[in-house]
Amino acid sequence: MPIVVQKYGGTSVGTPERIQNVARRVLETHNAGSSLVVVVSAMSGVTDSLIKLARQVSGRPTDRELDVLLATGEQTTIALTAMAINAMGGKAISLTGAQAGIITDGIHTKAKIANVSPRQIRKHLSDGCICIVAGFQGQTLQGQITTLGRGGSDLTAIAIAAGLKAQNCEIYTDVDGVYTCDPRIVPNARKIEVIAYDEMLEMASSGSKVMQSRSVEFAKKFKVPFEVRSSFNTNRGTIVKEETPGLENVVVRGVSIERGQAKVTITNVPDKPGAASRIFTALAEAGVIIDVIVQNISTSGSTDISFTMNRDELEKMGQALDSVVKEIGAGKIVKQDGIAKLSVVGIGMRSHSGVAARLFEALGKGGVNIQMISTSEIKIAVIIEEAKIVEAANLAHEAFNLSQA
Amino acid sequence: MPIVVQKYGGTSVGTPERIQNVARRVLETHNAGSSLVVVVSAMSGVTDSLIKLARQVSGRPTDRELDVLLATGEQTTIALTAMAINAMGGKAISLTGAQAGIITDGIHTKAKIANVSPRQIRKHLSDGCICIVAGFQGQTLQGQITTLGRGGSDLTAIAIAAGLKAQNCEIYTDVDGVYTCDPRIVPNARKIEVIAYDEMLEMASSGSKVMQSRSVEFAKKFKVPFEVRSSFNTNRGTIVKEETPGLENVVVRGVSIERGQAKVTITNVPDKPGAASRIFTALAEAGVIIDVIVQNISTSGSTDISFTMNRDELEKMGQALDSVVKEIGAGKIVKQDGIAKLSVVGIGMRSHSGVAARLFEALGKGGVNIQMISTSEIKIAVIIEEAKIVEAANLAHEAFNLSQA
Repeated sequence: MPIVVQKYGGTSVGTPERIQNVARRVLETHNAGSSLVVVVSAMSGVTDSLIKLARQVSGRPTDRELDVLLATGEQTTIALTAMAINAMGGKAISLTGAQAGIITDGIHTKAKIANVSPRQIRKHLSDGCICIVAGFQGQTLQGQITTLGRGGSDLTAIAIAAGLKAQNCEIYTDVDGVYTCDPRIVPNARKIEVIAYDEMLEMASSGSKVMQSRSVEFAKKFKVPFEVRSSFNTNRGTIVKEETPGLENVVVRGVSIERGQAKVTITNVPDKPGAASRIFTALAEAGVIIDVIVQNISTSGSTDISFTMNRDELEKMGQALDSVVKEIGAGKIVKQDGIAKLSVVGIGMRSHSGVAARLFEALGKGGVNIQMISTSEIKIAVIIEEAKIVEAANLAHEAFNLSQA
Repeated sequence: MPIVVQKYGGTSVGTPERIQNVARRVLETHNAGSSLVVVVSAMSGVTDSLIKLARQVSGRPTDRELDVLLATGEQTTIALTAMAINAMGGKAISLTGAQAGIITDGIHTKAKIANVSPRQIRKHLSDGCICIVAGFQGQTLQGQITTLGRGGSDLTAIAIAAGLKAQNCEIYTDVDGVYTCDPRIVPNARKIEVIAYDEMLEMASSGSKVMQSRSVEFAKKFKVPFEVRSSFNTNRGTIVKEETPGLENVVVRGVSIERGQAKVTITNVPDKPGAASRIFTALAEAGVIIDVIVQNISTSGSTDISFTMNRDELEKMGQALDSVVKEIGAGKIVKQDGIAKLSVVGIGMRSHSGVAARLFEALGKGGVNIQMISTSEIKIAVIIEEAKIVEAANLAHEAFNLSQA
């Protein structure tokens, strides 16, 4: 019998009624003739309530204990989901991360999966049971409870699919799949049927937050194809898988945008070894996450360095750089808010030229001014004024004919 | 260093503030120079909420899944308690029942502790840590999560105290200890300093529900002395331990009452072997719990059999006995509501005579009519009209001078 792994996120199991809805879907798949492993998250809101509770007893809760606390969220969902399936005449068994054989390192609150030993799962599947597994959690070899950090339940599903060599891995969320662009911004955006891991990664890092990058990276590493689909309808979703020659025929797979950015320019940075290093080391130590970096060739012994980041990080950036800028003898820090990033992504770019030109032309004709440009092998990103992002997204989407399959 | 096991019930850890209060107490004991294991229950109300959630997804939740669900209650408390202690500068580690080495049989929702292997606890104690252990739960040898049923957290504490050969085991509740009678009924009731296991068992089975009988029986079996005390003050409580000659000098330790009882009489039961057996087998199969049973000597070939039970069981009793009474050729079922039981308890009774006489005399002088009498080696129980129970309790309390130490 083929093995199918399904994962349902917090919104999909957010109420007792939704859990019963998931139970019905699970039973349908099972009755259609599959061995089923179902990974569930904590009911939406539960994790936040637990963190709030922790803050009421401790200003800075111990990471180890935070994991013990948060793990109860998914444990609650697995029990309820199994009960719901059993009440509908199915045969389900719940398993915590530990019981399911998710072995992690000991870095509490952001543990990495070291190994999956799905002995228990295999046993229950061969007994004809549906296994309901707690996402987001595991245990160390010493039996300590750990959690995997953001997007951890997706990771659990993909790791189990890899461990069991499952035929299908289905990630159910509150969206239909991955779109050529956010349909709220580009009305004629189209659902993508198949996308390569690397494209999905670039889309994710460019703002299309259907899944955390680490889960996609994990799937890529272990060659686990998966499908992103909605738990609220029965539409096919988007399949994420290894590159194939067919996939490369499409030059641009999608347009991804990220709002709420800020641009910072350090003027007159002396053109000496180590200056840029000082700046970005200070930012890293302060925990400021930098996105695009641009530095032009120096002609006068000094140069300007620009970079972008989330707008919320501006203050931390200022604190980190004020003294550094003086020490290295640079000019001043110029901050610009109200910035956004637009990226066009596609593995076909590797073998097609003229993509950048087509993008720039479309934006130029539309009167969108490009402030910064950054490229990778399969992506072209531009930094523009945030007020123009909707217009720009529609222009780019049209320039590459993305509304047509 | 002496090992102390403390247990805090649901009310004692019912809010974040109360958890912090427990954390302070725990730290005081630890700083006074003890190795500490703290057993905690689910925050009051949490278990009921979880059961309510279960009922929303399933009419009859699977026992196995109910255990997985309910176990999250104590897991939440251990994490919060450990965090609170750590926030106050202590060094605490939480352990689930499974991690603490509580091994049980596989009877879900009412598992029996088969074994305690406190290897993890010993290791953490020797590291100078305070161990916070989830009460009420354990795991089978196959790694299934189980719960111990009502009063399970007391059981966990006593089992761990036995396993560690702890110097002290302190059961913290919302009462000060065990009293000579319920102070709400007998205003000059006095706290008992020391009580024997058997007395505690008779008091518990007679309505003084400070602890479940099974926990006391477990403590008796493994010779674990323990102290019942309040988590809301620092008063000494009541020590429960093995009998000593000194303990026997007191004839009556306390008076216990149980309201809400009902009396049933089956008239004209044929005086043949098997008749009583038919009646009580039918009641047992229907799950009706019978308390006192009285049958007089037969002089006419048939006899009356009377028994008492909780008032709420009357209907179930009727359903169970209607046909049986006809089959064995007995008369009719006479039900009487508004009944209560009063018991005087004391191991000293074994070597003192005249206790029954003194009790009956006191009740008789007070105009309290005795409907049934039942005795054990260390208890005399009488069934009386419920309306007279407060008067009767005060009369008995006075007759045995219980307000004086």
